[in-house]
Amino acid sequence: MSNKQRRSLVPSNIEQLSRYIAGKTINEVVVAYHPSKIAKLASNENRLGFSSKVQGAILKALPSIQNYPDPLANRLRQAIASKNNVSEDRVVVASGSESILAMLCRTFFHNGQNAITANATFVGFFVQMGVRGAHLKKIPVTKDYRFDVKALVNAIDENTKMLYVANPNNPTGTYITRQEFEWMMDRVPSDVLVVMDEAYYEFAQDVEDYPHALSYSYDNVIVLRTFSKAYGLAGFRVGYGIAREDIIDNLLKTKLTFEPTALGEAAALAAYEDDEFLKKSIEVVNEGKERLYSFFDDKGVKYVRSISNSVMMVFDSEDEAIAFTQAMLEKGVILRRIHAFGLPDCVRVTIGVQEDMDHFEQSFEEIMIAK
Amino acid sequence: MSNKQRRSLVPSNIEQLSRYIAGKTINEVVVAYHPSKIAKLASNENRLGFSSKVQGAILKALPSIQNYPDPLANRLRQAIASKNNVSEDRVVVASGSESILAMLCRTFFHNGQNAITANATFVGFFVQMGVRGAHLKKIPVTKDYRFDVKALVNAIDENTKMLYVANPNNPTGTYITRQEFEWMMDRVPSDVLVVMDEAYYEFAQDVEDYPHALSYSYDNVIVLRTFSKAYGLAGFRVGYGIAREDIIDNLLKTKLTFEPTALGEAAALAAYEDDEFLKKSIEVVNEGKERLYSFFDDKGVKYVRSISNSVMMVFDSEDEAIAFTQAMLEKGVILRRIHAFGLPDCVRVTIGVQEDMDHFEQSFEEIMIAK
Repeated sequence: MSNKQRRSLVPSNIEQLSRYIAGKTINEVVVAYHPSKIAKLASNENRLGFSSKVQGAILKALPSIQNYPDPLANRLRQAIASKNNVSEDRVVVASGSESILAMLCRTFFHNGQNAITANATFVGFFVQMGVRGAHLKKIPVTKDYRFDVKALVNAIDENTKMLYVANPNNPTGTYITRQEFEWMMDRVPSDVLVVMDEAYYEFAQDVEDYPHALSYSYDNVIVLRTFSKAYGLAGFRVGYGIAREDIIDNLLKTKLTFEPTALGEAAALAAYEDDEFLKKSIEVVNEGKERLYSFFDDKGVKYVRSISNSVMMVFDSEDEAIAFTQAMLEKGVILRRIHAFGLPDCVRVTIGVQEDMDHFEQSFEEIMIAK
Repeated sequence: MSNKQRRSLVPSNIEQLSRYIAGKTINEVVVAYHPSKIAKLASNENRLGFSSKVQGAILKALPSIQNYPDPLANRLRQAIASKNNVSEDRVVVASGSESILAMLCRTFFHNGQNAITANATFVGFFVQMGVRGAHLKKIPVTKDYRFDVKALVNAIDENTKMLYVANPNNPTGTYITRQEFEWMMDRVPSDVLVVMDEAYYEFAQDVEDYPHALSYSYDNVIVLRTFSKAYGLAGFRVGYGIAREDIIDNLLKTKLTFEPTALGEAAALAAYEDDEFLKKSIEVVNEGKERLYSFFDDKGVKYVRSISNSVMMVFDSEDEAIAFTQAMLEKGVILRRIHAFGLPDCVRVTIGVQEDMDHFEQSFEEIMIAK
């Protein structure tokens, strides 16, 4: 081994990644700034909480927790298949849709193949492509912060394996329409996998020209959904993907053997059956958005209309975005800067319950007066 | 795109993988064979259950479950660092040690680099190396089913990046001694990462010549532990790794953002503080092993002495191993064939509580009489 090649600890694609840096916890915000109350509006969680049926389901599942979970989460898998009218062989359940994105990246790329997405979308896809070390083409969003389907299609080349579209998009809250989706799918080659990330589907489903990707029969489309947003179960890490059988079968080869957790499956099943809670959650978000739009219109704040559970504020500069986020943090309103998502001048506001939005507006007013 | 290269759906390393095929569930065994009772001795879970402190910890953590988990599981991370007397920057917590194995495989290999392990060890490492598509050299175990440290060291070449040793080994229950570990570490180049998988550490820790890998200061060693075995929390998926800071820092780049789950962290913390339950679990396993050894000696059954919570039976052929496992299954005793681990002629028996071992022995006697 005398002539051993000297090599760095990790390959260059890993070296270039940064580890995730969490924002301040609620406790850290309290200790640092002593705000009168906290509105956690940074992570698009459900501020209404979660279904009251979850606690009972967890206690019922708890006695068997010393056993490994069901590798396929079959009870939940069947419920998802049934609700979406597909066979269960077309469903994979995993530790959040982030885990399925990770599986997609590690399963399907031959060396030299690339993926295409927007330059302002879910950072998780950027990260997972980096972990895989495959090339990602980031196509600029339109002036109104939407996926530019024509530019996406034009960017496809002979080495393109995957197209990633978050619909509604995160962090912008915008969406591609039925017409755009159909136009795009007519032009994407059948061996390019189209990942439609519908993490915010439940908030978007009633919008008239929103394309429910599952209502089509394109067999190169993978739809991702999650229990972390409208269902309020982010802490459990449960998401699912629906695609044609051989795509799912390959994902199952690279999935961790036992994901999601046993209690995650039980909680998601209980939440999935509670239509009332879901309906209420959607109403709270719709009311909160209308109220916030009026407030922003009144104050002359630039923002982007959204069909998800967050609204993006647009500032004139990154410095302004930083200053606003920090000032609100000191008032106890935790917001999300989205530079990692490709939008340094913008700030994402999760729609909370009435009390959260009161706190947001009041803190905003106080900041403006202090200026 | 007319001259587009035709490529298979997935690269060859993925094509060669099989998806995990679960054994029969308890319910399926009941429906198929109507046994009078069930002894689930297939997955090395803790048949005593888990700490009574877990339920309270879960109920306390439940109200915040609509929020994403702490990405680093800092409270648990600190507890692990403190108990092992290392700085918390040297600890990563994730969805079971399987998840950390997966991270190791996707983080550290340059193209063309290889790993080395035994031909009869934890199948999870075989799978994760396949997912990465890196070459794995499988070195035959010794005649007494132990890692052959001399042969492992001899197999190291200029492209070797990783050595994987499960200690105690799964499924054999054997171990490498202090002397062997030190001999090996003296010879492994410092840029080869040595993964010491101590999933069964708690059962092994009091064995006189068992090498506690953390008690040394080799800085190319990564120690893996889990809450799935002695702590009885398999359903929660919580494991951890301890290594030098820059190794951990790179693992944090490729870890899913939010693993483990919030309730998993809370449960593991509660279990980690319950020394009484742990002690009882170890006692039950030690008593059960002695009892099983006597039983096997009495019956003339070949087996391997173990320092973990399972004992491996050795048959004369794969057919015999299959027939025995099936006959026991029909009696309600669920055992694990370990052909996927490289040992087609062997069967792994998890040590259960007294009732489980009664059921095992009685079923064994019935099968022998019926022969």
